[in-house]
Amino acid sequence: MSLAGPLPEGPFGRAPLPLGSVAGFLEPNDPFLTACRGEHPSHTPVWFMRQAGRALPEYRSIRGEGSILDAIRHPELATEITLQPVRRYGVDAAILFSDIVVPVAAIGFGVDVNPGLGPVVERPFASAADLQRLRPLEPEVDMPWAAKTVAILVKELTVPLIGFAGGPFTLASYLIEGGPSRDYAKTKRLMHGDPALWSALLERLADLSARALVAQVQAGAAAVQVFDSWAGSLSPHDYERFVLPAARRIFSAVEGLGVPRIHFGVGTGEILDLMVEAGADVIGVDWRVPLGRAAAKAPGARALQGNLDPAACLAPWDAVAAEARLVLESAPAGMGHVFNLGHGVLPGTDPAVLSRLVELVHEEPPR
Amino acid sequence: MSLAGPLPEGPFGRAPLPLGSVAGFLEPNDPFLTACRGEHPSHTPVWFMRQAGRALPEYRSIRGEGSILDAIRHPELATEITLQPVRRYGVDAAILFSDIVVPVAAIGFGVDVNPGLGPVVERPFASAADLQRLRPLEPEVDMPWAAKTVAILVKELTVPLIGFAGGPFTLASYLIEGGPSRDYAKTKRLMHGDPALWSALLERLADLSARALVAQVQAGAAAVQVFDSWAGSLSPHDYERFVLPAARRIFSAVEGLGVPRIHFGVGTGEILDLMVEAGADVIGVDWRVPLGRAAAKAPGARALQGNLDPAACLAPWDAVAAEARLVLESAPAGMGHVFNLGHGVLPGTDPAVLSRLVELVHEEPPR
Repeated sequence: MSLAGPLPEGPFGRAPLPLGSVAGFLEPNDPFLTACRGEHPSHTPVWFMRQAGRALPEYRSIRGEGSILDAIRHPELATEITLQPVRRYGVDAAILFSDIVVPVAAIGFGVDVNPGLGPVVERPFASAADLQRLRPLEPEVDMPWAAKTVAILVKELTVPLIGFAGGPFTLASYLIEGGPSRDYAKTKRLMHGDPALWSALLERLADLSARALVAQVQAGAAAVQVFDSWAGSLSPHDYERFVLPAARRIFSAVEGLGVPRIHFGVGTGEILDLMVEAGADVIGVDWRVPLGRAAAKAPGARALQGNLDPAACLAPWDAVAAEARLVLESAPAGMGHVFNLGHGVLPGTDPAVLSRLVELVHEEPPR
Repeated sequence: MSLAGPLPEGPFGRAPLPLGSVAGFLEPNDPFLTACRGEHPSHTPVWFMRQAGRALPEYRSIRGEGSILDAIRHPELATEITLQPVRRYGVDAAILFSDIVVPVAAIGFGVDVNPGLGPVVERPFASAADLQRLRPLEPEVDMPWAAKTVAILVKELTVPLIGFAGGPFTLASYLIEGGPSRDYAKTKRLMHGDPALWSALLERLADLSARALVAQVQAGAAAVQVFDSWAGSLSPHDYERFVLPAARRIFSAVEGLGVPRIHFGVGTGEILDLMVEAGADVIGVDWRVPLGRAAAKAPGARALQGNLDPAACLAPWDAVAAEARLVLESAPAGMGHVFNLGHGVLPGTDPAVLSRLVELVHEEPPR
């Protein structure tokens, strides 16, 4: 495994796929990558955000006690947890077992992840003095285990591995609020009140995410997703002024690496166009926006990813199946579709339902 | 004050206003009511959701200890709390100091409101057996203080009083989850899993809200707002199937009472058209949807209400003013505009900022 080797440049979209040189075993007509290119695969690919984790008994039995950030740091454990949902569900993509705060934690900002609650920051970001707590990430020094895990995984997997990182608004919100928030009051106060400091913060966070993503791709990840989960709490005007420049920074860092770039957040119906503009090939859509509408709202995107309501998966199977078919039917014919939930798998979800969902999606003829 | 007297029938929108017979002191060209009719008032009217409450020192000093539901039951106290923001800010409408769970509590379902957290339900709604815990509301028996408060208020006020009630999805979510929720997992499980029980539940909740609203109007409220705050967590398809019929039930109960009907929720960008279809004259819009877009999304609405991000109000004044001007500029010329926040006043908001906001809105020439 080498982190230093240069990667083939060029768009991921055309054969011969630069992807081949990263993860040589992947077929050029791999369903997930084909859909991400906006083309039509043999079957609709499907994976689930948060497919690894608490919903799986095999995860609970292997995870043990301790912080999730510790588990992430162990390549063998992280590999096994990443593989579990691929084995069980037969999904068309794996996603690295990690967390969006990993790079921030790796440079010692002082953040942990509280099970069931989310990130908790010891000393929240409050002023310009806190900028120096956000030094640049050196992935090979600060989080060498990540590339190791990716390298093991790409040897084991026969489906693409998705690497990921946090989007700038979402990371900033955790750092400023000190944890999850309902209204992002402190975050938005800083954003509106001190735009220069805000922009400096977002630039640093974007660089952390960008470097983490590049390292994941160099180690073999075949696609990347930026989770700006809470960016949908902003108006289009605020997203454009206050977040888009930093989002662009992340996406341009992975441009030309030959991997599809997915951009996701919840409640983003009014900013889907801007999320494409940031540099995304694929737009993750939450369940609020029917895919047909999402296509019109996201001109330039090659593919849509989504968007079954994760809470619908808690209903009896017939209801789940009906909802899943609605999603498949709403996927616009003119672009790629990666089936997914509209947000992460909820903890109470029956894994058997997700298995059946994969079967259902694979059986339906792609549009 | 009489609850029994018949009200004049007919649309509120045309002179001679039936409103006159309810609250005779209100001018026919009252700015708030004029904007609600879709007409152009002398100045843009403004009020703030949750304008009474924790943000005000005079509220904190008068409220004392004990549940908010107790405070609501005291007409003198509830009157004073309703008046406080009108006095301080000079807003163009008062909103009854109450809570959306009041009717549910009044029939003894067992619900309280936890300060800073929200409604807490002792024994959540779980099965058909719980339906019998939701008997019809008799406002004059179960909550006579409400009409009493309204009657005192309309004598004191020189601006319209807005009555309000909870929307069916939001009420159902509190009853089923037992309190506030991030993902509405139990609520949606019941909704998808047992549509017959769901619909029976929503019908009862709609009737509770409808009766409470009718009683408020009969006592003198000059407008009503239905807060279906969390309905935006549903896809349009789910809202249409699972909530719209109950929402219609509420709005048709107050149709013909001569008062404008406002419908509000957060994150509702994809369901604004359906929220109008429910029977609303005025659509409350959260800050995610620029008002110009909202107009196109809500055909048939006479007016829009909103939509400054409440979190923006925590910034220094210059930033707040700039944001407020953007809202005013984005209001479409062809319909009424009631300036408001996109959701309730946040607890940390400086009352001085809201005072200046009212001044700013009043000084800008209406569009």
